[in-house]
Amino acid sequence: MTNDAEELVRTRPEDNEADLYDENGNVRGDFLALVGAAIADRDTIFLRQHVARLHESELGDLLESIQPDQRLALVQLLGDQFDMTALTEVDEAIRREIVDQMPNEQIAAAIGELDSDDAVYILEDLDQEDRDEILAQLPFTERVRLRRALDYPESSAGRRMQTEFVAVPPFWTVGQTIDYMRDEENLPESFSQIFVIDPTFRLLGAIDLDKILRTKRQNKIETIMRETNHPIPAEMDQEEAAQLFEQYDLLSAAVVDENDRLVGVLTIDDVVDVIHEEADEDIKRLGGVGDEELSDNVSSTVRSRFLWLAINLGTALISASVIGLFDESIEKMIALAVLMPIVASMGGNAGTQTMTVTVRALATGDLDIYNAGRVIRREAAVGLANGVMFSTIMGTIAATWFGDYQLGFVIGAAMIINLFAAALAGILLPLLLDKIGADPAIASSVFVTMVTDCTGFFAFLGIATWWFGI
Amino acid sequence: MTNDAEELVRTRPEDNEADLYDENGNVRGDFLALVGAAIADRDTIFLRQHVARLHESELGDLLESIQPDQRLALVQLLGDQFDMTALTEVDEAIRREIVDQMPNEQIAAAIGELDSDDAVYILEDLDQEDRDEILAQLPFTERVRLRRALDYPESSAGRRMQTEFVAVPPFWTVGQTIDYMRDEENLPESFSQIFVIDPTFRLLGAIDLDKILRTKRQNKIETIMRETNHPIPAEMDQEEAAQLFEQYDLLSAAVVDENDRLVGVLTIDDVVDVIHEEADEDIKRLGGVGDEELSDNVSSTVRSRFLWLAINLGTALISASVIGLFDESIEKMIALAVLMPIVASMGGNAGTQTMTVTVRALATGDLDIYNAGRVIRREAAVGLANGVMFSTIMGTIAATWFGDYQLGFVIGAAMIINLFAAALAGILLPLLLDKIGADPAIASSVFVTMVTDCTGFFAFLGIATWWFGI
Repeated sequence: MTNDAEELVRTRPEDNEADLYDENGNVRGDFLALVGAAIADRDTIFLRQHVARLHESELGDLLESIQPDQRLALVQLLGDQFDMTALTEVDEAIRREIVDQMPNEQIAAAIGELDSDDAVYILEDLDQEDRDEILAQLPFTERVRLRRALDYPESSAGRRMQTEFVAVPPFWTVGQTIDYMRDEENLPESFSQIFVIDPTFRLLGAIDLDKILRTKRQNKIETIMRETNHPIPAEMDQEEAAQLFEQYDLLSAAVVDENDRLVGVLTIDDVVDVIHEEADEDIKRLGGVGDEELSDNVSSTVRSRFLWLAINLGTALISASVIGLFDESIEKMIALAVLMPIVASMGGNAGTQTMTVTVRALATGDLDIYNAGRVIRREAAVGLANGVMFSTIMGTIAATWFGDYQLGFVIGAAMIINLFAAALAGILLPLLLDKIGADPAIASSVFVTMVTDCTGFFAFLGIATWWFGI
Repeated sequence: MTNDAEELVRTRPEDNEADLYDENGNVRGDFLALVGAAIADRDTIFLRQHVARLHESELGDLLESIQPDQRLALVQLLGDQFDMTALTEVDEAIRREIVDQMPNEQIAAAIGELDSDDAVYILEDLDQEDRDEILAQLPFTERVRLRRALDYPESSAGRRMQTEFVAVPPFWTVGQTIDYMRDEENLPESFSQIFVIDPTFRLLGAIDLDKILRTKRQNKIETIMRETNHPIPAEMDQEEAAQLFEQYDLLSAAVVDENDRLVGVLTIDDVVDVIHEEADEDIKRLGGVGDEELSDNVSSTVRSRFLWLAINLGTALISASVIGLFDESIEKMIALAVLMPIVASMGGNAGTQTMTVTVRALATGDLDIYNAGRVIRREAAVGLANGVMFSTIMGTIAATWFGDYQLGFVIGAAMIINLFAAALAGILLPLLLDKIGADPAIASSVFVTMVTDCTGFFAFLGIATWWFGI
């Protein structure tokens, strides 16, 4: 450790939050330097004292912030004091990188300590072979629970659920239930409701903890239990489950199998992550960057962006060939070459506006077949209105710029046509993609721009050719 | 009511969930028709029986789905059976429309029944005058509580908090606490932790409900309370508070004033709404549609999109004037006009990719001054790599298309330059906007596209003019 670092350690207060983050909520540079020095010096005492006690999400932030080659070293130096939960807080690329290089025995030992949902989160990224080897080293009940969760489809509620929960029979009293919770060692780490089940684990109802606390001991559970709020089928997609949570303000929900048997509980903190991920996905797909993460390296980033750019090259070539149809007109009237990108650009922007609203409304379930007609009419009207306004503005500018009022009329007419086409493409293409089961976010941009570019060039150059007789 | 509608009512099952939504989770068309008919017939019996019992979010969905002119009629027909909470679930435009037309007395009566956070949500949209009139009709404590929340800045934790909470002194026992909850009538509707305070309401700690249930009656509160998890200053921005909830997986958090006195509690369901809103905002701002909502009418939509399109027109004119510099070159070599939009379009797309990743990473706090250098280097490398690949591809296509290998070299060179410039603009512009305190999402698109258009046209036409000596 350097002298500077030693100095910092000595003067540093004990409160870890004040340490890790600066006032902007970013990981502090000097703390990173300290950790880096400690890793280089293999100073396990410092690391166990100052890093092991971080909250899982803070440790995750730290792992993302240090140099890539320091990550595995840090995990190894922390040894059994490394909190595996931190791996659920980092980008997938980093998680894989660390887990792939950890010995399976170490993973198995750590996994045994985790809540089942966190364990599944880490296990699902592993190869089948590694996963089996790790599961084989776990105690029987733990193994069965994790296997069951892993058997559900990726991104399903069954994958995200926690298999630990508190369930009691309906004939118990409130007093018995409280005594059970006071004596039982194996309760989940935290919970906000308990479930009521029959002997075959079929779900009968649920009770919020505050209800139990408000009820006298002698009351029977069945008299105070309520109907279970929106039990979630284990096969349900996590995004759909998240929408239920949002709609009904749930804190946790029972997850049931096809026979209505209670198999786990989905909690709001996992759902918050899902909401975040899904919004992230929408934004990134609209921007043409797929599932890219900030920590991806150059080569995987190049690969993930290549396809999108290649498709764009294809559509740009189509637009260029539209221009090619009118090369003689452009040769005779060079102003057309100067003005044509304006028509295309305005169409592209107007189309993107409509598309953004449509894609988002489809994702949140606000747009459906019952109001689609109204929204389409609104977009068409908006496109027409903006078309008229901008055709007047741009017509005037073009007429003045090139001293040719006829050119003003031509570009004005093209502008109205293109902004109207942009509105229709912006709403109809995402609706169509959604209808055929494609994700509207991922494919809309490229198609909408193709429509607005082609329409823009064709309308402007075509009208000009016809009007000026060239 | 029509005969069809009567038929449906008679055959409809009593379970309301099966009623309101179809299998895709959309509000059912036939239910809408029934409600519409009942509103037209002023059939309050039907409405109170089938609409009043809907969950607040279902009623909200229904209000959004029916015809605009039916909304106020429905609210009036439901009378005191209308659940005002439903108004927190609809778009702002609809909320204002309904509230503006309700008499203040009716609002005041309904507000008195709401949780304070919902009440504030509705009151904050009203004019000062209406708000004061409504507040004046509320009981004293209620009025003071709501005023205090409304005094905090818009979008702050203090605005979103619930002012009802359970707080006990540290010297009570678990038994006393449970007895208090069993006897007290005025508890919040639901809660997941209770707070420990001193006589001046200063926050001492908190206890999760499951902890109370696991602890024997004779234990003192102060022996089982834990340090309060991340108490939130009432002045803190809701987005920052939401990030704390996400990072530390909080279910609820104490909200404290500047003297560390407990003033309220922020719960995860409100935070989920905030996360949703913020993601929505990012997506919409990137798409150039501001705060638009699906239910906005044509004229307000036209207005909200106009500014963005006008700015885009300005930047398109700048790009066009770049082309204008080279009109003689284009006149002599018409292929330039055909190919130039391809260079600009590829740059625009590559720039959008980088910008999307950057804006999102800034919003989620993943990008900060400590890793900005690394990310900038990565983006530059990705831009260069994609530039080389697409310059080869496009160079070959152009050389073949126009039978001129020199043209291939020229467009290839322009492509490398523009994709590199796109990468730099895509990351540096959002960083700069963030640095000067502007929202990178709202202004990035237009500036990035301006850079890539201008660079694309200038590089391609400039190199061609120089190379071919025209």
